[in-house]
Amino acid sequence: MTGAKAKPHEAPTVRVALLGCGNVGSALAEILLTRQDDIAARTGIHLELVAIAVADPSRPRSALIPGALICTGAAELVARPDVDVVVEVIGGLHPAHELIGAALRAGKPVVTANKALLAVSGAELADVASASGVDLLYEAAVGGAIPVIRPLRESLAGEQIVRVMGIVNGTTNFILTRMEEDGCSYEVALAEAQDLGLAERDPSADVGGHDAAAKAAILAALAFGSDVVDADVHREGITALSSADVAYANHLGYAVKLLAVAELIDGGPEISVRVHPAMVPRAHPLASVRGAFNAVFVEGAVSGELMLYGRGAGGGPTASAMLGDLVDASRNLRAGAPAPAPKRTSATIRAQTEMRSAFYLSMDVADRPGVLAAVAKIFGDHNVSIRAMEQVGLAEEARLIFLTHVAREGDLLATIDELRMHQAVDRVSGVLRVIGEEGHEA
Amino acid sequence: MTGAKAKPHEAPTVRVALLGCGNVGSALAEILLTRQDDIAARTGIHLELVAIAVADPSRPRSALIPGALICTGAAELVARPDVDVVVEVIGGLHPAHELIGAALRAGKPVVTANKALLAVSGAELADVASASGVDLLYEAAVGGAIPVIRPLRESLAGEQIVRVMGIVNGTTNFILTRMEEDGCSYEVALAEAQDLGLAERDPSADVGGHDAAAKAAILAALAFGSDVVDADVHREGITALSSADVAYANHLGYAVKLLAVAELIDGGPEISVRVHPAMVPRAHPLASVRGAFNAVFVEGAVSGELMLYGRGAGGGPTASAMLGDLVDASRNLRAGAPAPAPKRTSATIRAQTEMRSAFYLSMDVADRPGVLAAVAKIFGDHNVSIRAMEQVGLAEEARLIFLTHVAREGDLLATIDELRMHQAVDRVSGVLRVIGEEGHEA
Repeated sequence: MTGAKAKPHEAPTVRVALLGCGNVGSALAEILLTRQDDIAARTGIHLELVAIAVADPSRPRSALIPGALICTGAAELVARPDVDVVVEVIGGLHPAHELIGAALRAGKPVVTANKALLAVSGAELADVASASGVDLLYEAAVGGAIPVIRPLRESLAGEQIVRVMGIVNGTTNFILTRMEEDGCSYEVALAEAQDLGLAERDPSADVGGHDAAAKAAILAALAFGSDVVDADVHREGITALSSADVAYANHLGYAVKLLAVAELIDGGPEISVRVHPAMVPRAHPLASVRGAFNAVFVEGAVSGELMLYGRGAGGGPTASAMLGDLVDASRNLRAGAPAPAPKRTSATIRAQTEMRSAFYLSMDVADRPGVLAAVAKIFGDHNVSIRAMEQVGLAEEARLIFLTHVAREGDLLATIDELRMHQAVDRVSGVLRVIGEEGHEA
Repeated sequence: MTGAKAKPHEAPTVRVALLGCGNVGSALAEILLTRQDDIAARTGIHLELVAIAVADPSRPRSALIPGALICTGAAELVARPDVDVVVEVIGGLHPAHELIGAALRAGKPVVTANKALLAVSGAELADVASASGVDLLYEAAVGGAIPVIRPLRESLAGEQIVRVMGIVNGTTNFILTRMEEDGCSYEVALAEAQDLGLAERDPSADVGGHDAAAKAAILAALAFGSDVVDADVHREGITALSSADVAYANHLGYAVKLLAVAELIDGGPEISVRVHPAMVPRAHPLASVRGAFNAVFVEGAVSGELMLYGRGAGGGPTASAMLGDLVDASRNLRAGAPAPAPKRTSATIRAQTEMRSAFYLSMDVADRPGVLAAVAKIFGDHNVSIRAMEQVGLAEEARLIFLTHVAREGDLLATIDELRMHQAVDRVSGVLRVIGEEGHEA
């Protein structure tokens, strides 16, 4: 192996360059510096951290990281002959894209957790890695410490995956859990998440579903071997959810979760890839995923239902997943056999309006005779069949809660458009898909 | 690679021999025979089933399995030069042990789900595999379709695992779920499991905890790199549990689960490996694992809490996991680089009497003044501190329910011995460890 030192009677050394030294980078550097011997005993590989490239070397860092390891030229570091493997934890598209590309072209495996980059350029970078015969591994890009990518790529390699549904954003799951458990508003729950450091000052990447959409694209690419990019993902966030809707959903026996879904339609080749809040039945394993935890639920044709659960973010958990990749990449580098990269084909994505689901709707209407009949007629005119209706609130205004049978999403949207124009309807607010009813005709 | 045919522009062929054709074997044979092209497209490996060795060729089999594939001489099949990889689904210790050893020594990777054999001879067979430079893979041996073994061996390769707790026996989890949900007795729930084919006519391997103990030994060996065999595992089954104890536990906010636990004590090297029923707090992810589902909960020093959930048994799910191993073994065989086998060391197992836990106890006592004081004194005399006590039942007999603070197990056993000798105590029945309190001093 190029550049690796194999000492007799010792674990062979693989030399690691780290690009970036934020939260995750520091955690990984500390593990590599303090647990080198444990890791060698456990894995047979001696991982030696040779340098850490950072943008600003003057920033204070962990006392466990010697200043001599810090350097500034990431591109030069990647090219150094005494670097065997590269770990990228800079994040963002540039210069991460160029650095990863350069490392792979130089025959150096890359470990990254850069979901934004992978969701845009994953297929291209996988091709570069494949052409160089080295690994591009990214277990930490979805679900932090949870083994998700490797099971999809290896354990289920021979399986036909039918659907993947994930709670892949801890910030939104924390907010939704708080709204459900304490009945607080979205704004109050968000402020609490920000105080705890679980949400950014500008929370839009999380609450708007962008982060989950990038992960949905990665999951779809792995599950179905399709070239899915994040622009392909139908995306709805949680900002429009009211605590009242979360409470009604709860009362009806459901938890509200922001789901990233990738599914094969009618055996394929069409797929659907989407992110939206959904009502998940209490008995479903995803309903019990609370707070900042993540989980990915996988349905295979033969394996049945699987769920992988754990901490989806944080320096330690993310670093732990990257360490697993680093060991894997190092072993594969020494063996000269990279991890298998499934062939990708172009994806055929079904339009969201053609998708079928049961829906929950809440609307505020004038509380006078005839209104319900008028509203019900609008549903019927658009082929949306009502499974249950409940009136809540007793003032002049009434709130109506509807659960529909499985309906075409385009028909439901047309129903909402017409409801909004009706003089007795003040507001159509919560619209949630109901999990557990898809595909089953009413 | 010995014997593999690599056709230009085609996925290379790896030829598979199947030993055994029961429930799992048939399911795997059907997948290999009907989904060969899908698997090749997804994995880059063309898996060709060359023969199936069975004890009785006259037994009726799936119409999808051509009679020409069936043969009787398993030892001859393993030795055939046109066999690249061997899958063992015979079960039991003999002749599985000899056949697996012969295959490995002939340089043929082996995929098995034989937990009983692995729990006795896993270390020895791993050494044989290692000496031959081929894989011995057994993802399906614990948790059926759930990716458990590979995450422990690969994703968490660099992680220090602190504890593994699994619900690894679907039969007992089904029985306990029925007792909890319907309040039925152990006997009624067992009969139902037998009617559904979830329990054997002789259910002792499941309900006595033997099956779970074999899996606990495998998990401990993987998590801690220790040579643990099933005789090392402290084992208690579920046969002594009453529906009343399950109901009290439920009332106190706990689900009763049969757990297989492997844990590192105070940072090691001592470990504890045990199987026993336990009270799991409702909010713990393991509490929501219902019916015949399995789950393995892993606590890592850096990764935090992970849970892997799914179908732990059944032909399809087990075959799916074995297929993942088969793809892996085939790829590694072609690359000439077997999956890493962590070094094992001899295990130092802490005596169960030295373990510390909180406990639940129920006992029937005479309902007269002074009894509670006498009973409480016995606890105190043995250094067992009572956290909560409740009296249920109003006749001449009273049932007392105790929750203790964390206590040494030997002290608790001495307490029970003395309680049983006290004239006012008719019966000490339910004794359950309480999860979530271990290691925290009162």
